[in-house]
Amino acid sequence: MARAVELAARGHGTTSPNPVVGCVVLDASGEVVGEGFHAYAGGPHAEVVALAQAGERARGGTAYVTLEPCDHTGRTGPCSRALLVAGIARVVVAVADPNPKAAGGAARLRAHGVSVTIGVLADEAARANEEWLTYARLGRAHVTWKFAATLDGRSAAEDGTSQWITSPEARADVHRLRAASDAIVAGIGTVLADDPHLTARPTLSSTDPGAADPGRSVRRPVRVVVDSRARTPRHARVLDDSAPTLVAVADDTDTALKADLLRLPRDAHGLDLDALLRELAARDVVSAFLEGGPTLAGEFLRRGLVDRVVAYVAPALLGSGRAALGAAGVGTIAGIHRLTFDEISPIGPDVRLVARPVTQPGREQ
Amino acid sequence: MARAVELAARGHGTTSPNPVVGCVVLDASGEVVGEGFHAYAGGPHAEVVALAQAGERARGGTAYVTLEPCDHTGRTGPCSRALLVAGIARVVVAVADPNPKAAGGAARLRAHGVSVTIGVLADEAARANEEWLTYARLGRAHVTWKFAATLDGRSAAEDGTSQWITSPEARADVHRLRAASDAIVAGIGTVLADDPHLTARPTLSSTDPGAADPGRSVRRPVRVVVDSRARTPRHARVLDDSAPTLVAVADDTDTALKADLLRLPRDAHGLDLDALLRELAARDVVSAFLEGGPTLAGEFLRRGLVDRVVAYVAPALLGSGRAALGAAGVGTIAGIHRLTFDEISPIGPDVRLVARPVTQPGREQ
Repeated sequence: MARAVELAARGHGTTSPNPVVGCVVLDASGEVVGEGFHAYAGGPHAEVVALAQAGERARGGTAYVTLEPCDHTGRTGPCSRALLVAGIARVVVAVADPNPKAAGGAARLRAHGVSVTIGVLADEAARANEEWLTYARLGRAHVTWKFAATLDGRSAAEDGTSQWITSPEARADVHRLRAASDAIVAGIGTVLADDPHLTARPTLSSTDPGAADPGRSVRRPVRVVVDSRARTPRHARVLDDSAPTLVAVADDTDTALKADLLRLPRDAHGLDLDALLRELAARDVVSAFLEGGPTLAGEFLRRGLVDRVVAYVAPALLGSGRAALGAAGVGTIAGIHRLTFDEISPIGPDVRLVARPVTQPGREQ
Repeated sequence: MARAVELAARGHGTTSPNPVVGCVVLDASGEVVGEGFHAYAGGPHAEVVALAQAGERARGGTAYVTLEPCDHTGRTGPCSRALLVAGIARVVVAVADPNPKAAGGAARLRAHGVSVTIGVLADEAARANEEWLTYARLGRAHVTWKFAATLDGRSAAEDGTSQWITSPEARADVHRLRAASDAIVAGIGTVLADDPHLTARPTLSSTDPGAADPGRSVRRPVRVVVDSRARTPRHARVLDDSAPTLVAVADDTDTALKADLLRLPRDAHGLDLDALLRELAARDVVSAFLEGGPTLAGEFLRRGLVDRVVAYVAPALLGSGRAALGAAGVGTIAGIHRLTFDEISPIGPDVRLVARPVTQPGREQ
């Protein structure tokens, strides 16, 4: 199963809106005869790849799969049937499928006499599928909030200047994360102050399994501007044609802005950001990369809508200037947003810290 | 020499106001016959320990020393003479002694026909002796600024509450660093807000080479309150008898405060902190541990008087509340205080980041 999780990870960033899945097939004697992973949406599922490699040797064998095999016919046939046809005797699953459309694979397999075990290396497999599981379980896009700051938590000097606090290595890493996301989200404050493009430099390489597939277009994450009063300037870079853009405005905002508008209700604190993430999920956005603005980041955090934090901290001090994070609904220390570090690693001269909330956002609301 | 540097490090935190020094003696055939390090002020120097262990086998041999052997008689005799008496033929030194009182060892050895090489593993040896070299070269105490903050650089919530942002592991580490310092420095703001003791819990253990020495008292770092207008309350904990305390006040401040006052001139920004560090050095304070207050930390930083930063960053976010660092003289990004990370390591659930200024403070002023 560890190998299957490893295989699954290869699909990371290219399978959306599908999960990443890895599969290892053993023959009846326990020898590995097939390996596969899901590389991109519309491409063959991990089980199908591994079974094709195994051929007749799969008969009477065991399949290790990181996610419960699907039982529905989408762009590809159900994997449960493929496993039955191949004559697999035993299926070991890490994580059950929370998606009602695709679930039922384990039940169908069992009904046909296949032994099914669920829960092996479940934590590891769930980690590899984190974005998709959030999307499938909560029905909203998974949110990674990224910020770059000094050691004292500032992202610009007193006069607003900020180029460059972090290193080229850290900035290249941000482009990599952007490219692996389905949406890049920024607030109107950032658009007005910095006029960013919010695009990812293309990072597809010749080793990318989908790069040679003519049926697969280069991914361009959708750009999302959170702009309740529709203040995005007509000539803002974020509205150019380098990628699609959605401007999220309040449903009571009267505007003539020529852009793809997403009209959202308001909640107690402003635009209903949970509704935004649900609307994005409905548009196949599994992973949203939240970049710009301490104010918007604070609003997501206040609502428990940040699933992962990626911080690039530079070895530098400012002492004044813009804080990396704005008001996030914490009045006293008991209300602090507790996280846990998943990763602490040097990147160029900086340090990259990846953290997640201690309690699952969306659960405690 | 690598071994000598390793030996030197064993004296760290207990030799003040002396440097840490390690020494390895080889006989004429190149075999190691003696090792020593300077364990505490007043105790034997590293060379003397190593030579005693080597005995007659030192004759015609080589001594590796991390710091140029002293040439003066303090509480112990000059090491240059000890090396000559032992018949050492060659001395290899990492770092030349910048201390005018003790220097001249190399010259004396050479005058007596001993071959002397200086500069071997100099960077490593200087790093191990960082506090003392700053003190010896600049004539002021070395400053380590410690802070504990959230990932967004805050050290208290909006209402001032702050217990506990970092973990017990991080706090224990702070006590270890306090105990290894000669002085603990805080600003009057911290004294008024938190009424801290500013003491180190005793950490001497039975393996400490000086613990069994009846002539050596337990180290109690002197507490220093930077309090230009002498506002320290009469019953502040920092004035109790658990450790000596200095209250640094402006020389034009009229006060009846019953405390050991250090009267200092003012500079353009407030109390002359460089003068403070010189006064501390004159009182044998080699290393000062700056703890309390974003304002005071900003004032040290503004003047280029922070030699090392130790940051404990908790996986938590506040979004508002007290910033870890106050105004530090940076108006625009070009004026940012650039550091370099020496260490990035997890400590309990937190991360500990150790950094130093890219340009040596005190040099660029």
